[in-house]
Amino acid sequence: MEFHYPNGRKYKGNPTPNKNKSKKEISYSNRGMTLEDDLNTTNAYYLANNIAVIHKKPTPIQIVHVDYQSRSTAVIKEAYFRQASTTDYNGVWDGRYIDFEAKETKNTTSFPLNNFHDHQIKHMKSVVEHKGIAFVILRFVKTDELFLLKAEDLFFYWERMINGGRKSITKDEIIKSGYSLKYSLHPRIDYLEIVRHVYSL
Amino acid sequence: MEFHYPNGRKYKGNPTPNKNKSKKEISYSNRGMTLEDDLNTTNAYYLANNIAVIHKKPTPIQIVHVDYQSRSTAVIKEAYFRQASTTDYNGVWDGRYIDFEAKETKNTTSFPLNNFHDHQIKHMKSVVEHKGIAFVILRFVKTDELFLLKAEDLFFYWERMINGGRKSITKDEIIKSGYSLKYSLHPRIDYLEIVRHVYSL
Repeated sequence: MEFHYPNGRKYKGNPTPNKNKSKKEISYSNRGMTLEDDLNTTNAYYLANNIAVIHKKPTPIQIVHVDYQSRSTAVIKEAYFRQASTTDYNGVWDGRYIDFEAKETKNTTSFPLNNFHDHQIKHMKSVVEHKGIAFVILRFVKTDELFLLKAEDLFFYWERMINGGRKSITKDEIIKSGYSLKYSLHPRIDYLEIVRHVYSL
Repeated sequence: MEFHYPNGRKYKGNPTPNKNKSKKEISYSNRGMTLEDDLNTTNAYYLANNIAVIHKKPTPIQIVHVDYQSRSTAVIKEAYFRQASTTDYNGVWDGRYIDFEAKETKNTTSFPLNNFHDHQIKHMKSVVEHKGIAFVILRFVKTDELFLLKAEDLFFYWERMINGGRKSITKDEIIKSGYSLKYSLHPRIDYLEIVRHVYSL
C-alpha cells in the first residue's frame, strides 16, 4: 500500500543510500512540499543570491468584521476568500517584468483548464501586450513532473476551449509546447534558467 | 468650523460655479476618496486604456481558523494582519517593472519615515538593483498635496535617519527632491506621466 501526503505526493520513506546510483540520477523531488512551498523557497533563493525579486502575492481576502480587542491586536473575525484578479507571482528580473501562475493537477494524462480563471487569462494577455514575460508552471502531482508553458501557448489552448474544443491540455501537448522543469537543491525549481532559454535572454 | 471626512480630508461643500475661474484652476481633488481609492481608480484607468498593468497587492493576512460551513462557503473565523514584506503596488508599463508604495500623513511640515518599514526599504533597494523603477507617492492630507519621490531619494533620507538624523523628511526637502503630482479627472493621479519625465522615458 502506498502512503500519500495530503497534497497528493507519494510518501517514499527515508531515502536509502544507493552506492550504485550515479550523481546525475539524484532526485530532489518528492520531499512532501507543495508546489507553492517549492516556488517560495526558489524565490527566496533568487532574492538572497541577488538573482531576481519575485514574490507570491497574498491571498485576496474580503474582510467583513474586525475585532479590536486591545490597542495593539486587531483580530479578523469574519472574512471570505476572494478570487484573485491577477496571477499569484510577479516581480523583476534584470529589468524585466516576470508574471506567472502555478497550478497542480492529480490527473495524469491532461491538465484541466478550469485551474485558471477568465480574468487570470485576461491579465496574462495584458502582461504580454505590455511586454512583460508571462507563463504558467504546471505540476502533475502523481508523477511529480513539472512544466513551464508560455502564456502565449496557454492562450491557444484556452481559445480552443472557448471555441468548443477540449477543456484541458493533453500531456502530450504540454510536452511538445512546454518546457520540462527539474527539481534541484538550490534553487528548488530553477524556472528562470528555463525562462532565459525560452525567451532567448 | 471645518468639517472633515474620516480620512482627514476637508469637507468643502458643493462646488460653487465660478465664472471668473480659468480652466487651469479647476481642482479635482478633495472628493472624499482616500489615496488608495484614487490610485486604484487610476490603475483601473491605465488598464482599461491599455496604458499599463499595475495592481495593488492584497493585504497580507495570517489565517488561523477557517470554518467550512457548507460545501461552497469557507468563512475565515480568525485571522490577523501581517506586515507587508514588499510594497503595495507593482506591475508592468511598456516592458518596465514598476513598484511603489503610497502613504499619507496628517503632518503639515514633514513626512514621518515611520510610514515605511525596514523590509519595504530593503525591497525597493532590491528592485532598483534589478533595474526596476521604484518610488513612493506621498500625500499631505490637510493640504491635499501629492508628491512622487524616487526610491533612491527616499533611501537617502532613510540612511540619514539610521545614522542618527531626523526621523522625517521635511516638506521643503520633498518639494526639492520630489515631484508634484496633480489630481485630474481621468486618470485621477497620472503618476506614470511623472515617471516618464523623472526617468526620461
